[in-house]
Amino acid sequence: MKLLRVDMGQLEARWEPVPEVYERLGGRALTSRLLLEEVSPEHDALGLHNKLIFAPGLLGGTGVTAAGRLSIGAKSPLTGGVKEANAGGTAGDTLGKLGIKAVVVEGQPKNRGVYILHVTSDSAELLPAGNVRGLGTYATADRLQEQYGSDCTVLSIGQAGEYLLTGASIAGTGDGDQRSNHAARGGLGACMGSKGLKALVIDKPAARSVSLAEPELFRAAARRFAQELINDPKLGPKGGTHLYGTASITAAVNEMGSFPTRNFSTGSFEGAVNLRGETMREIILARGGRIGTRCMPGCVIACRNLYVDESGHAIVGTLQYETIALMGANLGLDNLDDVARLNYMCNDFGLDTVETGAALGVAIEAGLAKFGDFTSIAGLVRQVGEGTVLGRLIGCGAVTTGRVLGVRRIPAVLGQAIPGYDPRSLKGNGVTYATSPMGADHTAGNAFGARKEVNPLAVEGQRQLSLRLQIIGAMLDSTGLCLFARPPVIADPQLMVDMINGIYGWGWTSEDLDRFNRDVLRTELEFNRRAGITAADYRIPEYMREEPLAPHDATFDVPDSELDAVFDTL
Amino acid sequence: MKLLRVDMGQLEARWEPVPEVYERLGGRALTSRLLLEEVSPEHDALGLHNKLIFAPGLLGGTGVTAAGRLSIGAKSPLTGGVKEANAGGTAGDTLGKLGIKAVVVEGQPKNRGVYILHVTSDSAELLPAGNVRGLGTYATADRLQEQYGSDCTVLSIGQAGEYLLTGASIAGTGDGDQRSNHAARGGLGACMGSKGLKALVIDKPAARSVSLAEPELFRAAARRFAQELINDPKLGPKGGTHLYGTASITAAVNEMGSFPTRNFSTGSFEGAVNLRGETMREIILARGGRIGTRCMPGCVIACRNLYVDESGHAIVGTLQYETIALMGANLGLDNLDDVARLNYMCNDFGLDTVETGAALGVAIEAGLAKFGDFTSIAGLVRQVGEGTVLGRLIGCGAVTTGRVLGVRRIPAVLGQAIPGYDPRSLKGNGVTYATSPMGADHTAGNAFGARKEVNPLAVEGQRQLSLRLQIIGAMLDSTGLCLFARPPVIADPQLMVDMINGIYGWGWTSEDLDRFNRDVLRTELEFNRRAGITAADYRIPEYMREEPLAPHDATFDVPDSELDAVFDTL
Repeated sequence: MKLLRVDMGQLEARWEPVPEVYERLGGRALTSRLLLEEVSPEHDALGLHNKLIFAPGLLGGTGVTAAGRLSIGAKSPLTGGVKEANAGGTAGDTLGKLGIKAVVVEGQPKNRGVYILHVTSDSAELLPAGNVRGLGTYATADRLQEQYGSDCTVLSIGQAGEYLLTGASIAGTGDGDQRSNHAARGGLGACMGSKGLKALVIDKPAARSVSLAEPELFRAAARRFAQELINDPKLGPKGGTHLYGTASITAAVNEMGSFPTRNFSTGSFEGAVNLRGETMREIILARGGRIGTRCMPGCVIACRNLYVDESGHAIVGTLQYETIALMGANLGLDNLDDVARLNYMCNDFGLDTVETGAALGVAIEAGLAKFGDFTSIAGLVRQVGEGTVLGRLIGCGAVTTGRVLGVRRIPAVLGQAIPGYDPRSLKGNGVTYATSPMGADHTAGNAFGARKEVNPLAVEGQRQLSLRLQIIGAMLDSTGLCLFARPPVIADPQLMVDMINGIYGWGWTSEDLDRFNRDVLRTELEFNRRAGITAADYRIPEYMREEPLAPHDATFDVPDSELDAVFDTL
Repeated sequence: MKLLRVDMGQLEARWEPVPEVYERLGGRALTSRLLLEEVSPEHDALGLHNKLIFAPGLLGGTGVTAAGRLSIGAKSPLTGGVKEANAGGTAGDTLGKLGIKAVVVEGQPKNRGVYILHVTSDSAELLPAGNVRGLGTYATADRLQEQYGSDCTVLSIGQAGEYLLTGASIAGTGDGDQRSNHAARGGLGACMGSKGLKALVIDKPAARSVSLAEPELFRAAARRFAQELINDPKLGPKGGTHLYGTASITAAVNEMGSFPTRNFSTGSFEGAVNLRGETMREIILARGGRIGTRCMPGCVIACRNLYVDESGHAIVGTLQYETIALMGANLGLDNLDDVARLNYMCNDFGLDTVETGAALGVAIEAGLAKFGDFTSIAGLVRQVGEGTVLGRLIGCGAVTTGRVLGVRRIPAVLGQAIPGYDPRSLKGNGVTYATSPMGADHTAGNAFGARKEVNPLAVEGQRQLSLRLQIIGAMLDSTGLCLFARPPVIADPQLMVDMINGIYGWGWTSEDLDRFNRDVLRTELEFNRRAGITAADYRIPEYMREEPLAPHDATFDVPDSELDAVFDTL
């Protein structure tokens, strides 16, 4: 395998052998390690010295189902700490097949130019962005696929990334006509913008260029893994995840009283029934949209959808739970059409829907729009694309929006907005939000699935649960596996070990895998420590620790000492 | 002496004896110690648990010349750390005469009401702000002095503080018709706004209510102190400070190449001659304005002025160096009339001119106005008062403005804008900016006066110089002494010891005073440590360490190891 170094100062891309320290790493494990090795954590995240890293997981490009997620890493301009955000689509698989361990983007153009990086199996070239400069991510992908072929993968930023807004995402194309797989969190789109890089275009390789170390071991494990997913009652062809997508959990989160509603002011929403996955499915099917589509070819779960309007025209694909929570209930909107339209706009401008939804909730509390009023809310989102001062403010996320507008109830940790589970009534997620090196991030260790195992309203057991989930999260993000695909590898860790050994021949044991996972977190915590992040920063917002949340009148009452002890046994 | 506790939640003010731990403290020593004792450094600076403290210095109310400055302290919403900002005017003297060690404002009104605190020699009462709500600081002071008497002191916030903008100051009235003595830095005006406190009105006491421990010792020392100031060639009746005010240094800073010009992009300004103190004096005298006025009654230095327009009507009093640097050269304006008009607007809205000048420089770099174009710049400042989104953004200071507008050259440390000496060519100030617990602050330890002693462009000696100046700064800010009045007490530390012993009878030695001064810094560094501020935060901005500044092509090259070692010998 090889590494692609892209020097935006010299406008040169060059291949190099994978340095030994990175050889047994992939995905998040690699992006985080590379940051710690090569970027001083004190540097300006949007400055000359930060690096933006694209890395497929260890399983990338091997054809393992649901394992082609792409990790993107950099020092975050939003949190000031380490950041890895990953997304489905075809990029991870494609880079893996090309034998590219990582693309590392360094430096900044001296002339403030904006460029495209075109990567093929044996070449890499920087070209002026020309006619895609200033475009949204949809048009950017369309134009570049017209130019480079409809089977190439495009990773791009929209206007938000070009404006260096700290809520900006990076969008990737996916299976078929999928356009919107976002590495959404932490402002990585702004990092890409600061590098003067509008898009990566990656040609589809004919076949995988790297051979398997133990093909039989690999194939048997990969086959068993896929079969177990198919057999899983939740994930299989009749499972809720396939039928309703991520929105299958809407009703349950609302019933738990953890559904962020009107800027996190209450935990259940009277309009939640209209936002349920079941409702979404009915609407989509009745209108001739699509259910059960995939972001990655060959995924057996197929959780995605194409949400269409009454005339059957596409609004957005895919509509997901976090967006429904943050841009639906959190804005007082009880209509999926409205949420889908806001979602499309965010995707197009290249914005994290969680961060933007939270920022809009704060802006509404400041009186700039009305809860439940689509027109005034959409007007604010539109301004982000237009680049007005107000739009840029919203695009910088919840904390900056709250600071400027004088709002004190800001749902964020480490500067990053809290996703769709209020930590007061799902305290395990609160522990993850508070302690994850990534800032408030549900994918870092989501306790929702363990709600029957550990009482979400109790303090006891949350610390241990969060640590366990964060270790698993590190594994998923480093192998390229989708969060949904975790049950078989959690039930039998040997399954993942066999797949890795089958590909690379490293002879790992399950202890080696566990150490690998924990090392990811250790690396990230060390980066953050050097960046100046301390226990005082790893905290849930003050108001959530003091103001009770209806309907359970719950506060986030996990003591600081418990938060500070989460990684004691790492 | 006594302490006044003001509970904004219960809308109650109550007197209490001075707790023992605060007995031998005053000014900054007291505000910082009280914060460490009573406010958890992790709390939201604009939330329920922060406290806003008004404290005269140890010499306050005794009639020592130039010693009536008032310290105001709180956890800073701008830096996230400890903050003390002080100002001249009559408040410090008045509180001292009333025997009030400190006014401590706690909690927040439940109803979002806005109040005035009226303090007399034996009463303290909270009243609805009524007709001064929403007014600027000039009109607020005028109305309250009409109501409570022209000899009462008014401390107030303008619109900026009411909007909770992190660049908001607190204005105090002064001698005669002086209206604008600002405790400007660190966003203390926003803290006051967050407490629902629009103004303090302090009645003038008939006489000092606390007796002197050793009247003879005190009077002899105070007399000698005043005489030495009068005899000082720089400070006396023919000295530059009296003749030209703080602007006496403009030419020298410009010649050093340290004059912040066009968002700190160069260190000398072609229009500097028009901004010199000598020019200012000529203009003021020719137009019938005033030179040599005082903020505090009885000050023998009398550095202030009333800047008037061509018809002799007041524009602003007093026009000072830092404002001339940040709102003049830094904005490309070479006309004192323009600077004076911007200064008036900032004073009226209750804005730190340093923070606002730096924010405007950043906004101009982003294209929102033009360097040297008064009309477009004044339009931006006007919006702060109007409370538009853009205005609020500017009012939040340089860092937030830069973040939202995508500008990377932001002159700030710990989130606070750098004042009128570019640290690249006055490296001693750079060390102070970087390491002071206050963030970038020239009054924390200004090396300008030592430029003939330690080469401003060299690395050597800056660390030791900064520490020495920071210790002196702590003494000045804790005794209520004006920065200008330091030469006699530096030349003979026993002079200050005698004045303190004369008032309080503590029997201090000069070693006790030195320990007292150092304890101030230790207390503040400890508060910041608990607030999560680390070595990574105590740094000069990246671009100033890499981009050379004309005319000396200097970068800020004091190594991190030197910065980290500043307090090793504290």
